[in-house]
Amino acid sequence: MAGNSFGQIFRVTTFGESHGDGVGVVIDGCPSKIPLASENFVYHMQRRRPGRGAMDTPRHEMDRVEILSGVFEGLTTGVPITLFIRNHDVKSRPYEILREVFRPGHADYTYFKKYGHFDFRGGGRYSARETAARVAAGVVAGKILEPLGVKVRAYTIELGGIRAESMDLDFVEKNPLYCPDPIATERMKGVLAKAKEDADSLGGIVEVRVTGCPAGLGEPVFDKLDADLAKAVMSVGAVKGVEIGAGFEAARLKGSENNDPITPDGFQRNRAGGILGGISNGDEIILRAAVKPVPSIGWEQDTVDREGRPAKLKLTGRFDISAVPRIVPVLEAMVRIVLADHYLRSGTMK
Amino acid sequence: MAGNSFGQIFRVTTFGESHGDGVGVVIDGCPSKIPLASENFVYHMQRRRPGRGAMDTPRHEMDRVEILSGVFEGLTTGVPITLFIRNHDVKSRPYEILREVFRPGHADYTYFKKYGHFDFRGGGRYSARETAARVAAGVVAGKILEPLGVKVRAYTIELGGIRAESMDLDFVEKNPLYCPDPIATERMKGVLAKAKEDADSLGGIVEVRVTGCPAGLGEPVFDKLDADLAKAVMSVGAVKGVEIGAGFEAARLKGSENNDPITPDGFQRNRAGGILGGISNGDEIILRAAVKPVPSIGWEQDTVDREGRPAKLKLTGRFDISAVPRIVPVLEAMVRIVLADHYLRSGTMK
Amino acid sequence: MAGNSFGQIFRVTTFGESHGDGVGVVIDGCPSKIPLASENFVYHMQRRRPGRGAMDTPRHEMDRVEILSGVFEGLTTGVPITLFIRNHDVKSRPYEILREVFRPGHADYTYFKKYGHFDFRGGGRYSARETAARVAAGVVAGKILEPLGVKVRAYTIELGGIRAESMDLDFVEKNPLYCPDPIATERMKGVLAKAKEDADSLGGIVEVRVTGCPAGLGEPVFDKLDADLAKAVMSVGAVKGVEIGAGFEAARLKGSENNDPITPDGFQRNRAGGILGGISNGDEIILRAAVKPVPSIGWEQDTVDREGRPAKLKLTGRFDISAVPRIVPVLEAMVRIVLADHYLRSGTMK
Amino acid sequence: MAGNSFGQIFRVTTFGESHGDGVGVVIDGCPSKIPLASENFVYHMQRRRPGRGAMDTPRHEMDRVEILSGVFEGLTTGVPITLFIRNHDVKSRPYEILREVFRPGHADYTYFKKYGHFDFRGGGRYSARETAARVAAGVVAGKILEPLGVKVRAYTIELGGIRAESMDLDFVEKNPLYCPDPIATERMKGVLAKAKEDADSLGGIVEVRVTGCPAGLGEPVFDKLDADLAKAVMSVGAVKGVEIGAGFEAARLKGSENNDPITPDGFQRNRAGGILGGISNGDEIILRAAVKPVPSIGWEQDTVDREGRPAKLKLTGRFDISAVPRIVPVLEAMVRIVLADHYLRSGTMK
Repeated sequence: MAGNSFGQIFRVTTFGESHGDGVGVVIDGCPSKIPLASENFVYHMQRRRPGRGAMDTPRHEMDRVEILSGVFEGLTTGVPITLFIRNHDVKSRPYEILREVFRPGHADYTYFKKYGHFDFRGGGRYSARETAARVAAGVVAGKILEPLGVKVRAYTIELGGIRAESMDLDFVEKNPLYCPDPIATERMKGVLAKAKEDADSLGGIVEVRVTGCPAGLGEPVFDKLDADLAKAVMSVGAVKGVEIGAGFEAARLKGSENNDPITPDGFQRNRAGGILGGISNGDEIILRAAVKPVPSIGWEQDTVDREGRPAKLKLTGRFDISAVPRIVPVLEAMVRIVLADHYLRSGTMK
Repeated sequence: MAGNSFGQIFRVTTFGESHGDGVGVVIDGCPSKIPLASENFVYHMQRRRPGRGAMDTPRHEMDRVEILSGVFEGLTTGVPITLFIRNHDVKSRPYEILREVFRPGHADYTYFKKYGHFDFRGGGRYSARETAARVAAGVVAGKILEPLGVKVRAYTIELGGIRAESMDLDFVEKNPLYCPDPIATERMKGVLAKAKEDADSLGGIVEVRVTGCPAGLGEPVFDKLDADLAKAVMSVGAVKGVEIGAGFEAARLKGSENNDPITPDGFQRNRAGGILGGISNGDEIILRAAVKPVPSIGWEQDTVDREGRPAKLKLTGRFDISAVPRIVPVLEAMVRIVLADHYLRSGTMK
Repeated sequence: MAGNSFGQIFRVTTFGESHGDGVGVVIDGCPSKIPLASENFVYHMQRRRPGRGAMDTPRHEMDRVEILSGVFEGLTTGVPITLFIRNHDVKSRPYEILREVFRPGHADYTYFKKYGHFDFRGGGRYSARETAARVAAGVVAGKILEPLGVKVRAYTIELGGIRAESMDLDFVEKNPLYCPDPIATERMKGVLAKAKEDADSLGGIVEVRVTGCPAGLGEPVFDKLDADLAKAVMSVGAVKGVEIGAGFEAARLKGSENNDPITPDGFQRNRAGGILGGISNGDEIILRAAVKPVPSIGWEQDTVDREGRPAKLKLTGRFDISAVPRIVPVLEAMVRIVLADHYLRSGTMK
Repeated sequence: MAGNSFGQIFRVTTFGESHGDGVGVVIDGCPSKIPLASENFVYHMQRRRPGRGAMDTPRHEMDRVEILSGVFEGLTTGVPITLFIRNHDVKSRPYEILREVFRPGHADYTYFKKYGHFDFRGGGRYSARETAARVAAGVVAGKILEPLGVKVRAYTIELGGIRAESMDLDFVEKNPLYCPDPIATERMKGVLAKAKEDADSLGGIVEVRVTGCPAGLGEPVFDKLDADLAKAVMSVGAVKGVEIGAGFEAARLKGSENNDPITPDGFQRNRAGGILGGISNGDEIILRAAVKPVPSIGWEQDTVDREGRPAKLKLTGRFDISAVPRIVPVLEAMVRIVLADHYLRSGTMK
């Protein structure tokens, strides 16, 4: 109710702050007898870890996932799975300024307006740190999807205005930007280096593709599969837009161009992005998310203090130049969570 | 759970099919003592009514809202408000073909895959007819927002590739396309006429603006205000994309361009679209939705029948050329519902 | 959220007041392809109808259930099923006194305190009339349970202090008190006649038995099957107590007496009432509900008016002498709703 | 959805097993700015601790509550509060037998039927250990109720057939049985000693009283305050019955005896137990719960193994003779949780 849970049957509730004991997630509704171990999280936690490349913050975290409940002798038991990721390296000194003034583009201002009292250290609850819990939950969701043959892949298709032109999914894992285009990757590195020099930051676009999704997932009217995907994706802090299939381009197409003709072998094209009337049609699900530039920049910015008086703020320290690469595994996780939930929901209507 | 409810405290559940007895909505969680009468719905129901202009289907509906429960002596009582809109003029003969073959771009195929059995007449449950119930619910949501000074306005900013260049909100109500630009309106009418001639259809973009929204609405993490808005908007059948504030354009901005500086008098600009960290910041809320072209067109299209055999389908009858104008009041309604719900939620955390 | 919905997957939302247009229910989450027709409701609606016997109010209602949505060509479609039962014979004149003073034992006082404004005619939303919608929903739940062989039977085991001593389930349907003991039935009629003479009312105890329930229904911790049954039963207005299996008697047994030994053929006895740790064990589920005497009596009673001033109230008109028989089909319905919901939930964890 | 959450606005989700890392709870929806510290839990955790008296298991636990999230500088922040209580002294050797055979009266059998795979050590998820998390959550709920003047007190009114005849609430905290009657306490100790000698166990009845509860808490129809209390109480493992106010006795009263006359100074008596039509009336709320005898006894019992073959089971080790005293603080906690939730809900309807 207070917004920290997602999903109806596969229900995740995240908790924790960036500078408290740690972040974690309780997953209620995961079926029993699924193999799950601490090791299963290493790869995915590593992917969203800062400090992978030159464009990330140098704060190195050891994001080890502890399984606090719900697994017995290596198998899930059907009761709540609790995953916990301790915080390390949390010197809160540099954040004391945030007790006084609000950082433009961050949620300091709105949390103050909403709660009066909040843990402002490093973004506290609204820190990107919270997404570590989502990635961990996504691993569990993935365990439900895996036997169905559902595969979720996300990658950077645009960063700082540079667009990927070619699509090599193998290359995605080989570069710290998770970009499928080697040439674009180099150009992206260039604009990142330039932005760093300018003490500025960059946004971009992440695309997610789901293969192997059976037809029939999604509910009518409000809990459409694309509606829940849109919510899941938009709930990631830096995302400002989401589109499915042809997306905003569909607004400029004609019906004759946008309808996907159906054949005995499937759809002739995929403008729909794999979803019709809110329900998966068996084709590839495709969505894109617009990621805004990181609001923490090295410029002096105009702001106000808690009493509303004008103030200047110049942040120092270590910031990501772009959130895009780190959001790639987070969006994969969110899409897996939505699909696992809708897969379990779909079983109740037959 | 099966997807036909929306909202946590102000909770709407729609029901009904396009060719059954009617469509309706139960609203649970509306506060008591709010004046509400059947007349309050007339203006908004009229706005989404087909048959307003040359671009709409000539099927004329009398969308009178009956209040079946929850109002006593002109005031809401705090118990469920049930609104019902009877269907008229529902000759289902032309729809018999849908028993055999699936219309490309519609949900016939996915409903068949999901349910095996469904009311296919005129789209049944996934008909745009369902949105009449949303508009009715939006009127009640509006009654909650009105005393707060919150105003929600939607309009067509693009149709068939024609973009509105000027913004005259008074003009919006004076043209059947709900477009704020008189010159663009004429050009949109031109492309609509051309599309009609071609038996084709057009998409477009709707923008929604909310003024007077207090800071502090929205919840952290998953039930962010923008996440719930994205879900609400994407849950409208024809919508394929949604963006908040600068939206996809933010992906190409630098942090220094995208951060909205804060002053004692408010924000210096509004790239954020009125929402920071998922919580309203007191500024204007701005979002845009991409609407795909209506899938019902007069062309012969490739499809399959229920046994998966190839088939040709040529629809005859009366169709909207574009769903855009009719979606304008629906999006207004959905945004009102989200805001009323989050307003009531916000009261529980203080 | 505002309390008018029940169930997680098979989710019923009732609406309506006793002297408005009617009462109804939206059921979301009912699987598709279940045969359902208006005739299926006649028997059960008839059972809870007042006016069956001398002990009931002479107000005769035609409780015909209209199916407003969710059924196509005789089968459920998986989308919301809306059932509506119009009110007839609703002269609200005798209720005008309730605008002034509160009836002791009724919810007039608390609704006034909670809502300030409420439909007080004949109890409005808190009238027993609302249970007609529950009985209708119970019929749909029964359609889910039927193919599983689950049978729910309720009957009067005590009324006005008279206890049924023998158990003839066939006899239950042959007497207006739904009592399984012919001799006790006659004695119950006697105390009812006496109470009527005294312008007083009587309470009693209803027992519900479920046969054929598979093991494994119910969730751990909070949504235990017995916890949800307790809530469902206690949510019926006149119920003041509920017990499962040995119930309050278990408080006086020793562990050696209360544990049900397990054999290859099942449990040797059934003190548990068919539920262990909140999950059905495959044995018969047994529960009992204590029903208070109807608060509407012909005596002059002390009360206050809306300004808190002392007042005397002497109700005139037609009242049930005991709510017990009418609650029998309502409790059957509630138990069916709980079981259908938990049956559908159980499918999601495997 | 899978049953491990309770409450709508003040929403608690417990997790953990008796022989895993620990048990805990995430509380979402607690308002901000409430003082909360680890010390606040000591008194209540101590009260439910086993090993207080001769009648309890000698396993001594250090039930220290760690606050993992949601509190900053001593105040709640409005985001999820996570409380964790580590397990100590968890030698799982004696439980290996449970891999083979089911303990009569425990949930081993039903968990096996439901999940196939479960953590059976010491009851795992269905161990009374889980209630430690509830007691911790109850402390937070109490912090919301405290400023309102709402006080919740539970005590033992019956144990092993011995009934408390006098009511000294001060004495409750002075004896390990939480009994309000010094003479009955001595007799209860006697029957407990006898049961221990017999390797048997005893049940009893706990009463809960709430003073200072404002009128108007509770929702109509399904989420009645008494319905939610019944669910909360019945969700505690050993509880087999619950009654409000006159409860089962009301079934034997006449309307003239059971109605509580209203005066300008309140109700003349309290048969209703402080709740009318599911909504608190401002009077004292009174409920009672029937607690079954602990199923773990020293007798040889008939049971079956996982293959359904007959088996004999004789438990050895340390068991409580009666769960009653330990349930006293658990029921207090559950009632506090229900009241805090309904208090926060009530604010949304005005």
